[in-house]
Amino acid sequence: MSKNFEALDKYFEKGMALQTAITLLEWDNETLAPKLADENTANVMATLSDEYFQTYTCDEVKQLLDKCFEEKEMYSFEQQKILVELDKIYKNLEPIPREEYKEYAKLTAAASKIWAKAKGESDFDEFLPVLDEIISYQKKFASYRGKEGEASYDILLKEFEESFNMEKLDSFFQQIKEEIVPFIKKVVEKNDKIDKSYNQQKYDIEKQKEFAFWIAEYLGFDFDKGVIAESAHPFTTNLHNCDIRITDHYHEDNLESGIFSIIHETGHALYEMGIADNITQTLIGAGTSMAMHESQSRFLENVVGRSKAFWKPIYGKLQEVFKEQLNNVSLQEFIEGINKAKPGIFRTEADELTYPLHILIRYEIEKMLFADEIETKDLPEIWREKYKSYLGIVPENDGEGVLQDVHWSNGDFGYFPSYALGSAIAAQIYYHMKEIMPFETYLEEGNLSPIIEYLREHVHQYGKSKSVEEILQDMMNEGFNSEYYIRYLKEKYQEVYQI
Amino acid sequence: MSKNFEALDKYFEKGMALQTAITLLEWDNETLAPKLADENTANVMATLSDEYFQTYTCDEVKQLLDKCFEEKEMYSFEQQKILVELDKIYKNLEPIPREEYKEYAKLTAAASKIWAKAKGESDFDEFLPVLDEIISYQKKFASYRGKEGEASYDILLKEFEESFNMEKLDSFFQQIKEEIVPFIKKVVEKNDKIDKSYNQQKYDIEKQKEFAFWIAEYLGFDFDKGVIAESAHPFTTNLHNCDIRITDHYHEDNLESGIFSIIHETGHALYEMGIADNITQTLIGAGTSMAMHESQSRFLENVVGRSKAFWKPIYGKLQEVFKEQLNNVSLQEFIEGINKAKPGIFRTEADELTYPLHILIRYEIEKMLFADEIETKDLPEIWREKYKSYLGIVPENDGEGVLQDVHWSNGDFGYFPSYALGSAIAAQIYYHMKEIMPFETYLEEGNLSPIIEYLREHVHQYGKSKSVEEILQDMMNEGFNSEYYIRYLKEKYQEVYQI
Repeated sequence: MSKNFEALDKYFEKGMALQTAITLLEWDNETLAPKLADENTANVMATLSDEYFQTYTCDEVKQLLDKCFEEKEMYSFEQQKILVELDKIYKNLEPIPREEYKEYAKLTAAASKIWAKAKGESDFDEFLPVLDEIISYQKKFASYRGKEGEASYDILLKEFEESFNMEKLDSFFQQIKEEIVPFIKKVVEKNDKIDKSYNQQKYDIEKQKEFAFWIAEYLGFDFDKGVIAESAHPFTTNLHNCDIRITDHYHEDNLESGIFSIIHETGHALYEMGIADNITQTLIGAGTSMAMHESQSRFLENVVGRSKAFWKPIYGKLQEVFKEQLNNVSLQEFIEGINKAKPGIFRTEADELTYPLHILIRYEIEKMLFADEIETKDLPEIWREKYKSYLGIVPENDGEGVLQDVHWSNGDFGYFPSYALGSAIAAQIYYHMKEIMPFETYLEEGNLSPIIEYLREHVHQYGKSKSVEEILQDMMNEGFNSEYYIRYLKEKYQEVYQI
Repeated sequence: MSKNFEALDKYFEKGMALQTAITLLEWDNETLAPKLADENTANVMATLSDEYFQTYTCDEVKQLLDKCFEEKEMYSFEQQKILVELDKIYKNLEPIPREEYKEYAKLTAAASKIWAKAKGESDFDEFLPVLDEIISYQKKFASYRGKEGEASYDILLKEFEESFNMEKLDSFFQQIKEEIVPFIKKVVEKNDKIDKSYNQQKYDIEKQKEFAFWIAEYLGFDFDKGVIAESAHPFTTNLHNCDIRITDHYHEDNLESGIFSIIHETGHALYEMGIADNITQTLIGAGTSMAMHESQSRFLENVVGRSKAFWKPIYGKLQEVFKEQLNNVSLQEFIEGINKAKPGIFRTEADELTYPLHILIRYEIEKMLFADEIETKDLPEIWREKYKSYLGIVPENDGEGVLQDVHWSNGDFGYFPSYALGSAIAAQIYYHMKEIMPFETYLEEGNLSPIIEYLREHVHQYGKSKSVEEILQDMMNEGFNSEYYIRYLKEKYQEVYQI
């Protein structure tokens, strides 16, 4: 190996150690840390972020990177991809003044608690000053990073999905508006047909927990390489391919929530557990993009987890655990229940069909924010108008409205579209897999490993060494195509609702 | 403030952030991390330790430190103590070659898993190579650090207790041998009088857990500043005065173990929670020494927690929780049971009276090891001989013998004496407090706060800004005096056994 690449090793090692520590602090902060620890935790995270910043923005890294690019043909496929990733990180960090980066890290480390309090008290004004600060940092950072004339929001979007700018997303969401919005109207007219009152009975938390652990293992979650904890909002944390942590939440009066959350997070976990050993703990050793990640979680949650074939071999087990509540609920009734579509105010509790409208709303709002077409103080009102217009409902208060998502407090603007893109990719993969393997038969036989193995072989193992487009092309000879998503939603709901 | 002290700030900030991250990784590794994560975790910890090493050994730190010492009269009491502490860290780290420090960090991060496996399989040979490596590092490090002619073991001891070298410890343990060893013989002859069979009945784990949380809170544990988790061996982790984590373990057939472990760890936790706000997250923001820490945990566990006065107001609650098992056990019988002395093979399960002999054995072995009088391969045999000689019993295998403690796998040689010193300090504090406050009455009234507040005021708040000797002198006008410990053990056991 070249001495130039070798000389980068110490930076990789340090960067990765700092990244791991920061990620663990975040995980710990969300799942375990005592309430009053947060101020110090924010300081520690800011200091480590500053070290991380310095590690990858120093002159020697730039010089080595340039030299390595000059001799890149001597490197392996993975090494070349690592260089590309390092170049991205360098270009992403280097334009930002160090002090601003550190102040921003401190700001966002503290902001999620302020957001949580504001949300709990349904008081948008409490969150407004910190939100304004975050947005102004994001605008500044975008201006440092972007090319002349490039729109701020496009620069932000690129951080999450390289191949989806506003132009592409506009056309994607246009299709949702044209095809799905009117379709939802037709579907919800028939909602009386579906009785899902079983879901709101009293379900013992400990039993739910046990079932969640069981179903995670059934799907392939490896407890030697991962743990399951609890948090208000389920999420996944990945340190490396032998240390993936997911969380679930349990509600006594909502059986579905815990089950489909764990299936969703297991999808994220399997992606990260499937990263090849030779690239884990390198710059390319994680899922290639947020949309691809969401495609894996939503594939498991919706395409697999809400299908009749999936539940056929295991619904009996669920009935066994909750005899009293489910004995008189047939498999068919259960499947109808878990697929019932009903416009609601919460994104995270939305069904598969109305879900993309929640994303559409956020996308439109973020676009306007970063085009300076609206002011943050008007967000609650705009939020209500959009919900009225697209979903026909209005949240009762800001806690359930504009404050419902944590993302903005983390500075994650441009992130939401990945959720809808993930659903679309999941649908596309689904039609492909149905063609090449007896997909339903596998599910009906409780034989999930050929499905998971296929995903591992064609998606998971590569990490960031392949882009979304490359993964799709190599798998099915076709790039991203949202037609499959529209088709999937229509076919599925036509069947569930028999319309 | 001087610009020299200010210039040190960035080193303090970075050192503290790295220390916090390393501590959190250790905590996580012991309590939650998945099994296969350990190799990467060891690498990450080694890298962060290397950063920590560099932070405090760089030339600028040395120069600033020298300048600050020259102008030290312009600094506050706390700042002066911080400089002293920094000087200690510098002198402790600087003589070690950076590569050796890093390799050693990696070695010990991995060693505890090797030890755990060897212990589980009772296979000393499996642990022997890594133990040899650790010891040879420790000898090397001692030779780098020590003065000409200074004994290795004295150099190690100083890291844990500055004022206790072999000379002082020899005389301390001589007293134990002369006074306590024969006393134990007299006590155990009367063991038939005490029936503690109640302790081995079946105690529901969930109920034990609930009681442990309750008693921690009763003692003053603040759940806004701390958490309680589970681990095989209970321990305390302190990040700062608003983030203290303790663990407990629960055995269905051993009620005592979970209760007294939580009381013990709560003692450690209260010490760290009581550190003053103006010094937490500084170099002096933690307990002043291991012995002082153990004095606090053992004061709570033994002096308070095994007294009749303590249980008088709360034994009814314990009986309420475990009706079936304790209804026919009187308070007097319970107190006799929890104070029964019986030579056993496990240090951590030892009663208060035989406990110091476990330490004596380890002290004598470590002394010989670092004087090159024995070889590591002979440790199992030496262990058995010492146990036979001091406690009259021999462990059945090495897992229960020489492999029972984790300390050596962490490189903690010279640490064990602190446990016995802690008990001795606790006894000394006890006689002092009895003189100045209605100690027993407070306990009997369930009014613990005057006791905890007194400790907070005279011990906890100072952190490392006072030494053990300074704390004792300022509190009671007398330095460390082991006579109190001998007197305490005799008085207590004469009462319990009525001899």
